[in-house]
Amino acid sequence: MIRVVILGSGNVATHLLKAFLNTQTIEVVQVYGRSKNSLKHIIDLVATTTNLKEIATADVYIIATADDAIAQFSSQLPSKDVLVVHTSGSVAMHAIDNRFRQGVFYPLQTFTKNSTVDFSVIPICLEAQHNKDLVLLEKLGSAISNAVYFIDTKQRESLHVAAVFANNFTNHLYYIAKTICAENKVPFAVLRPLIQETANKIKTIDPIKAQTGPAKRNDQKTIEKHLNQLPEAYQNIYKTLTTAITKTYE
Amino acid sequence: MIRVVILGSGNVATHLLKAFLNTQTIEVVQVYGRSKNSLKHIIDLVATTTNLKEIATADVYIIATADDAIAQFSSQLPSKDVLVVHTSGSVAMHAIDNRFRQGVFYPLQTFTKNSTVDFSVIPICLEAQHNKDLVLLEKLGSAISNAVYFIDTKQRESLHVAAVFANNFTNHLYYIAKTICAENKVPFAVLRPLIQETANKIKTIDPIKAQTGPAKRNDQKTIEKHLNQLPEAYQNIYKTLTTAITKTYE
Repeated sequence: MIRVVILGSGNVATHLLKAFLNTQTIEVVQVYGRSKNSLKHIIDLVATTTNLKEIATADVYIIATADDAIAQFSSQLPSKDVLVVHTSGSVAMHAIDNRFRQGVFYPLQTFTKNSTVDFSVIPICLEAQHNKDLVLLEKLGSAISNAVYFIDTKQRESLHVAAVFANNFTNHLYYIAKTICAENKVPFAVLRPLIQETANKIKTIDPIKAQTGPAKRNDQKTIEKHLNQLPEAYQNIYKTLTTAITKTYE
Repeated sequence: MIRVVILGSGNVATHLLKAFLNTQTIEVVQVYGRSKNSLKHIIDLVATTTNLKEIATADVYIIATADDAIAQFSSQLPSKDVLVVHTSGSVAMHAIDNRFRQGVFYPLQTFTKNSTVDFSVIPICLEAQHNKDLVLLEKLGSAISNAVYFIDTKQRESLHVAAVFANNFTNHLYYIAKTICAENKVPFAVLRPLIQETANKIKTIDPIKAQTGPAKRNDQKTIEKHLNQLPEAYQNIYKTLTTAITKTYE
C-alpha cells in the first residue's frame, strides 16, 4: 500500500483523489485544503485538514496547487525526509523546497470541473531526484494509468509548450470557427464531425501528411477570398498560420 | 431510383461513389474521368467514360473536380435541361454554367485517399436554384448521411473559412506540437490523448468555456518562458494566438 497525502483541493487534486480511491494499492490518507469551504466536495471521501502542522505521515506528498504557489507552499510544509512531488507541467522539479526529496507527478490532461475523467488513458510524466522515488512514482502512476513516462524537467517544459499548441491554441481556433458560423447563421454542428476527424487522423497519419487546404496548395486566390471575408481580428491569425503552412510545404 | 453521373475520379468522387453504391435508392450510372489511368480504381465498380460526348442520361450530374476547374468544366458539358451540382465548399453555385439548373452538394469532410469514410456522420450542405432540385438533393444526401443541411452560397463560403481554422490550421498546430516533441526526444504519443480530449470537449462544452492555459490567465511569466524556449519560426504563431486569446478573455 502506498500512502499518499494530497495538498490542494482544485481540479487536479480532486481528479487524482478519485482515481486513487478506485485502486487497491494506493491509500489517500489525507487531503489538505486552505479552508473548510475549499474541501467541502472532498470531506465525505477522505480525511481532510486545513492545518499544515497536522499533515499526516505518508510515502509521498502530492502538491496540486497553482503553479506559482508550488515553491512557497512547499517551503511551508513540516520538514521531514519525505518525497514531495508537484503536478505541474511548467514548473521545474527543483522549485520544491530542497529540504525534501523532490519529484514530479504530472498528468498531462486538461481537467474540467465536474466532468468525469478516464485516468487509464491519461499520460503521467514522472521525474525524481532519486531512483527509489522514481520506482515508487512509477507504481503510483501505473495504478491509475496505462501511459506512464519518465520525462525530465527540460522535456516536461517542452511538452508543456507543445500542449499549449495542441490544446489551448487549438481550442481557440474552434472558438473562432464557431464565431464565424454564428455570424453567418450556420449551426456549429456542421463543423463538429470535421473537428473530430481532424483529431482522429493523428492516431494513424503524421500531421505533416494530413495537411490539406489552400495554404498547403499555396492557393492565393482562395486565401485572398478568405481574408476579404474575415473580420479584422481574425485576419492576422489567418495570415500568420497560412504563411507558416506555406513555408512548411514549399 | 435517383440516377447519378459523377464527373471526376479523385478523393471526393471516389468516396461519394462508394457511399452511393451502398444505397438502395441511388444508381450511379456512370463516372467520367479525364483518362483511363485516372479511372483505374473505379473501372470495376461502375460504367466509366473519358469522353464528355458520351455522358449518360441521369437525374443529377455531380462535378467533383478541383475547385478552379468547376466553371470551365461545366461549360464543356453537353447542353441539356439537367441538374448539375458541384461538391466544393468555396465555389459559388453560380460558377456552374448557366445553361444548367445549378446546385451544390458539398460534403464537409477532409477526405484522405484509401482511408474508409463513414458517410452517415458527414454533414452534407445543399443548395439549389429550384425547389424541386433541392428536394432531389435532399433525397440524395439523406440516402448516405444523417446530417443534411440547407446552406446558401454565402453561408457555405463562411463555413469553408471556418473549416480552414477548425481543420487546416488545427492540423498545423498538431504538426508544430509534434516537432517540439521530436526536438526534445519526447514521444508524440504523450500528447495524443490531450488532442483527442480537446476535440471531444466541443461535443458538450462551448469552446469559449473550455479554454485554459497561460494566455487565458494572462500569465506573462509562463508566456515569456515559453517564448524563450521556442524556435523563432514558432514564436510569431505563439504570440499571435496568445494575444488573440488574452483579448478574448480580458
